[in-house]
Amino acid sequence: MAFRVGIFGATGYTGLELVRILENHPGLEPVYLGSTSAAGKKLSDVFPFLAVSKYADLVLEDYDSYPELDLAFLALPHEVSMEKVPELLERGIKVVDLSGAYRFADGEAFRTFYGFEHRHPELLEEAVYGLPELFREKIRGARLVANPGCYPTATLLALYPLLKEDLLEEDTVVVNGLSGVSGAGRGLKQQFHFPEMVGNAFAYKVVGHRHTPEMEFVASLINPKGVKVRFTPAVIPIDRGMLSMVQVRVKRADLLELYRETYRNEPFVRVLNSPPHAKVPRDTNYCFVYPAYDERTGFAVVISAIDNLVKGASGQAVQNANLTLGLEETAGLTGRLPTLT
Amino acid sequence: MAFRVGIFGATGYTGLELVRILENHPGLEPVYLGSTSAAGKKLSDVFPFLAVSKYADLVLEDYDSYPELDLAFLALPHEVSMEKVPELLERGIKVVDLSGAYRFADGEAFRTFYGFEHRHPELLEEAVYGLPELFREKIRGARLVANPGCYPTATLLALYPLLKEDLLEEDTVVVNGLSGVSGAGRGLKQQFHFPEMVGNAFAYKVVGHRHTPEMEFVASLINPKGVKVRFTPAVIPIDRGMLSMVQVRVKRADLLELYRETYRNEPFVRVLNSPPHAKVPRDTNYCFVYPAYDERTGFAVVISAIDNLVKGASGQAVQNANLTLGLEETAGLTGRLPTLT
Amino acid sequence: MAFRVGIFGATGYTGLELVRILENHPGLEPVYLGSTSAAGKKLSDVFPFLAVSKYADLVLEDYDSYPELDLAFLALPHEVSMEKVPELLERGIKVVDLSGAYRFADGEAFRTFYGFEHRHPELLEEAVYGLPELFREKIRGARLVANPGCYPTATLLALYPLLKEDLLEEDTVVVNGLSGVSGAGRGLKQQFHFPEMVGNAFAYKVVGHRHTPEMEFVASLINPKGVKVRFTPAVIPIDRGMLSMVQVRVKRADLLELYRETYRNEPFVRVLNSPPHAKVPRDTNYCFVYPAYDERTGFAVVISAIDNLVKGASGQAVQNANLTLGLEETAGLTGRLPTLT
Amino acid sequence: MAFRVGIFGATGYTGLELVRILENHPGLEPVYLGSTSAAGKKLSDVFPFLAVSKYADLVLEDYDSYPELDLAFLALPHEVSMEKVPELLERGIKVVDLSGAYRFADGEAFRTFYGFEHRHPELLEEAVYGLPELFREKIRGARLVANPGCYPTATLLALYPLLKEDLLEEDTVVVNGLSGVSGAGRGLKQQFHFPEMVGNAFAYKVVGHRHTPEMEFVASLINPKGVKVRFTPAVIPIDRGMLSMVQVRVKRADLLELYRETYRNEPFVRVLNSPPHAKVPRDTNYCFVYPAYDERTGFAVVISAIDNLVKGASGQAVQNANLTLGLEETAGLTGRLPTLT
Repeated sequence: MAFRVGIFGATGYTGLELVRILENHPGLEPVYLGSTSAAGKKLSDVFPFLAVSKYADLVLEDYDSYPELDLAFLALPHEVSMEKVPELLERGIKVVDLSGAYRFADGEAFRTFYGFEHRHPELLEEAVYGLPELFREKIRGARLVANPGCYPTATLLALYPLLKEDLLEEDTVVVNGLSGVSGAGRGLKQQFHFPEMVGNAFAYKVVGHRHTPEMEFVASLINPKGVKVRFTPAVIPIDRGMLSMVQVRVKRADLLELYRETYRNEPFVRVLNSPPHAKVPRDTNYCFVYPAYDERTGFAVVISAIDNLVKGASGQAVQNANLTLGLEETAGLTGRLPTLT
Repeated sequence: MAFRVGIFGATGYTGLELVRILENHPGLEPVYLGSTSAAGKKLSDVFPFLAVSKYADLVLEDYDSYPELDLAFLALPHEVSMEKVPELLERGIKVVDLSGAYRFADGEAFRTFYGFEHRHPELLEEAVYGLPELFREKIRGARLVANPGCYPTATLLALYPLLKEDLLEEDTVVVNGLSGVSGAGRGLKQQFHFPEMVGNAFAYKVVGHRHTPEMEFVASLINPKGVKVRFTPAVIPIDRGMLSMVQVRVKRADLLELYRETYRNEPFVRVLNSPPHAKVPRDTNYCFVYPAYDERTGFAVVISAIDNLVKGASGQAVQNANLTLGLEETAGLTGRLPTLT
Repeated sequence: MAFRVGIFGATGYTGLELVRILENHPGLEPVYLGSTSAAGKKLSDVFPFLAVSKYADLVLEDYDSYPELDLAFLALPHEVSMEKVPELLERGIKVVDLSGAYRFADGEAFRTFYGFEHRHPELLEEAVYGLPELFREKIRGARLVANPGCYPTATLLALYPLLKEDLLEEDTVVVNGLSGVSGAGRGLKQQFHFPEMVGNAFAYKVVGHRHTPEMEFVASLINPKGVKVRFTPAVIPIDRGMLSMVQVRVKRADLLELYRETYRNEPFVRVLNSPPHAKVPRDTNYCFVYPAYDERTGFAVVISAIDNLVKGASGQAVQNANLTLGLEETAGLTGRLPTLT
Repeated sequence: MAFRVGIFGATGYTGLELVRILENHPGLEPVYLGSTSAAGKKLSDVFPFLAVSKYADLVLEDYDSYPELDLAFLALPHEVSMEKVPELLERGIKVVDLSGAYRFADGEAFRTFYGFEHRHPELLEEAVYGLPELFREKIRGARLVANPGCYPTATLLALYPLLKEDLLEEDTVVVNGLSGVSGAGRGLKQQFHFPEMVGNAFAYKVVGHRHTPEMEFVASLINPKGVKVRFTPAVIPIDRGMLSMVQVRVKRADLLELYRETYRNEPFVRVLNSPPHAKVPRDTNYCFVYPAYDERTGFAVVISAIDNLVKGASGQAVQNANLTLGLEETAGLTGRLPTLT
């Protein structure tokens, strides 16, 4: 018997990716697809190529018309998610929230970086940050999992061994992220119009990107000294894929060994001895990490690669759902190999 | 108990794609990976990202060192394949040959279009053309399946209903193919160096492309009147994906109905009522077909889309292997949905 | 003394391209930039990177506020152009119209293919079709030049020698066009959102594309027998560039000689003996043409390549302006070489 | 009367780019094109699309067969350049060397980062580093100009105002560079094969990239305190274009004003108040710079964009040639505007 799950916000990139993953999941069955723009249509009417899905005939419905569910995936705007979560929890429905609405306990940071007042601060403390490699045990029992942002996922997996072993020499970590354009969603913008984005690349939100406080908050959970993150994201002309390049002065040189040891038993983290390619994890839940050490400057240079829509969003959401529901952590997420093309 | 299969030519794009498909196949187990260039190395040494595969530790071996097999996939150059096939058949190993060496019975066409003399003409007659939608029953009993070329797969699926119903008004069909660059293989060429191919597109082998006689030969099997194919292939800046655009004057206008009827029960062909996108079948074995009719000129315009490495090569090879070995035809080929990104 | 020119519709891709070409033109000076959406702003406010232009401080104005001009370039929607042309001509301003509003004399075709009634049929006869290689002398004296569409430019330059020498064996020509996405303009559309268009390609308006009657009309001017055009356009993931691939049964085999002879003195047409690459003419006004002959089928296969925004739009518009104003035909359009990257 | 110049290494990307720039240069005339691989062929035989060049019939010759020249551009491998320079200088030919062979005075760094012993150390001191914005007056009188690397050009223009005003708070600057693939040259490599590079991005030479000592050496010329550079380059799927993203703790917040003041009179540097797009300077000699300040961390984040083949190589080489020969600095380098597409 599969668990009954719903996807709120099924027509965006992360919602669609959830559908694609669940098509092949032995223990989760989507019984509700929520959408405001497409309510009343069948899934295969919205996405004709999904006529081949076993869920092709599911009718999308508005966000209030959901049936009994064991778990809800929320792929909604931050503020919509913030309001929906308490309602779902009250009805006994577990939640994996892909928005940023419950990712950190600091109300002030919501005000500064998200521009709204958090109206359910009582839940901020209950919410578990859904990065299984760091918080697996807490996720197992959780009602509410805050699914991490894509940049924080890639960056925290790159930083974690350094934080855990307290190896940082400085209080500020410099992080450069490169993201595929799907990270910005399906909404149309002039700068993402194909003729302008192809052949292009640019940094954005150079000061004050929302993922900054998320990285800092989680870092402080791992190492109470905390760090400041100086984060520069840039968008590059690929559809999906993400690199995080972390640079910070450290106390130890033999990082490869440390990283291999740390992630030895992790099903979805692979440590490499050369820089990972953004394309390789495409369509998989893997994170590839390469830790280098620069003798001249004493810096660690750690580079990680994920698919921003899978390990950076929907794949990790399923990994979290598996954990909260007591399923095999890797269910629905393996069997597909990385690639060159 | 899974059948034991071998992949000859495991390090090219189609060989790698076979590995990726078999990772998730319930009835076929790769026990031999053949390679001359990488003989002696483990799969995960050749492709470090395949460390996550259950076959990561398989050691590649040269083409003579294969064990007992139930079936061999040949992803080899045409002439190498031509010579290997008789040897394998003699040892009782079924063959799915991804090269062009056994795709048509006409020795002359090999001379003209491939530039070599076929040295095993006796097997040309035995070989079955592995397009299951057209020749399913013959494939079931076959020892030797000639896996179709990518352009012929896409083109013949677009043409088949017209040929079968004898609807052509002309003896010549005009076909334009667009292919991703992976269709040209992993070998390096100046024109496929990234800085030159990005932003580029060009036709090639405008006269005399090898897939021309293949299309004509198979068409004559379907409709003894035969057709001439005027075929213009072009390469476009995508890694994988293929469109075939077929134009010919026809006797009937309501093509959508005809196509839907013809392909109603096909697991991997989907008829659309708008032009298919090359990206949609990415990483799947589906072929999407759109048949249009132009009243002004009396032409049918039929457009099909496949992933050149899957339905155009390795996916279809697995489909054929399933049929020859008596497995479920779709085994290992479903569960993965088309996509937008 | 430079001629005073205006650009109506200066913020779209063709308008911007006109500005870029005129920056370096010895005989044309933009004194008016028209825009509804950006009226009141300086050029360098709309496009900050144009701060380096000598026209950076020109203020955009609405379409009624133009000063005295010698010539107007209209980069406007078809119906807006249709209405603006008579007004400009009355004021003694020559017009090069980049829209389709005056491209052919057949009112019926406007109704069928453009969906509007032409309200100035008296001007349709006066308008000269601005393909200098075919109609140079008529353009020299013209008040109103209808600048050709991008597909018709590429296609007619590929067809012209065959039409002129009456070499067609059939009444229907099959044309496949591949276009960069800039051909669809700056307006946002879901299918041109970068994450969906990258890695993609698709045919569109397979039946009834507006450039069809344009090709047929101009063909009939060259050869009174006329032809039908069976035209299939497809969009590919490049920003600019266009290939036209023309296939038709012909009476003569030695096409290379014919094409070289025909275009021997043309400054912007170059005949090649291999298929042209779409990227090569990037940012230039050149058209590269390759005529092949297929003995098996008796077909000519002629392939041409242009930059859809230059020879397919703004470069050709300047070429036409040069001719109507009595300047050197190549003024402002040379000096820039084709490229590989 | 134009100066007679030669291009040694004319068939690589930078050599070809020099030809393209010189096509339109009023004061420099290429009279010699050097090539080993293509010696004896005409330019238009090597690059058929250059049949439209006024230099189409120039015959390429080997590196010893050059005529009398006023100036030589060397687009050669480092060690070949190192040996050629003394010979040319002896014959009274000025040199702009695009290789790294004379870029810094430190023989040890050549050993460590380039892997060879510098055999002409006496010339290292004479060579002038050809970044006109920093060393214009020295370049004017120079016999030997070492044309900067692409990353150092972008990075030093981003750093210069901070160095000059002594605003750094730390001894180490973190630099992340993103480069188009043309920066790696025309030579074929598996990782730059189109099907593998499209959709991909990866860091490389994370420790020990050759441009590191170049940046540090030039920084020390500007500010004797010097800096260490922690440099991480990455390649992204564009043909040309480069971003440098510089992060370092600084003493001053109002950077925009400082940068505008510093570069006020520079013809090729433009200061923006938002992050520059890599595509915008395409095919131009401009560098766009955006300086930001992050209050939370006290870091400056300065981002610059250039075309790696123009300001990052051949355009800057022409700028330097103009200066050494007493021509207008901008000759041949203006008239072409940045773009969106």
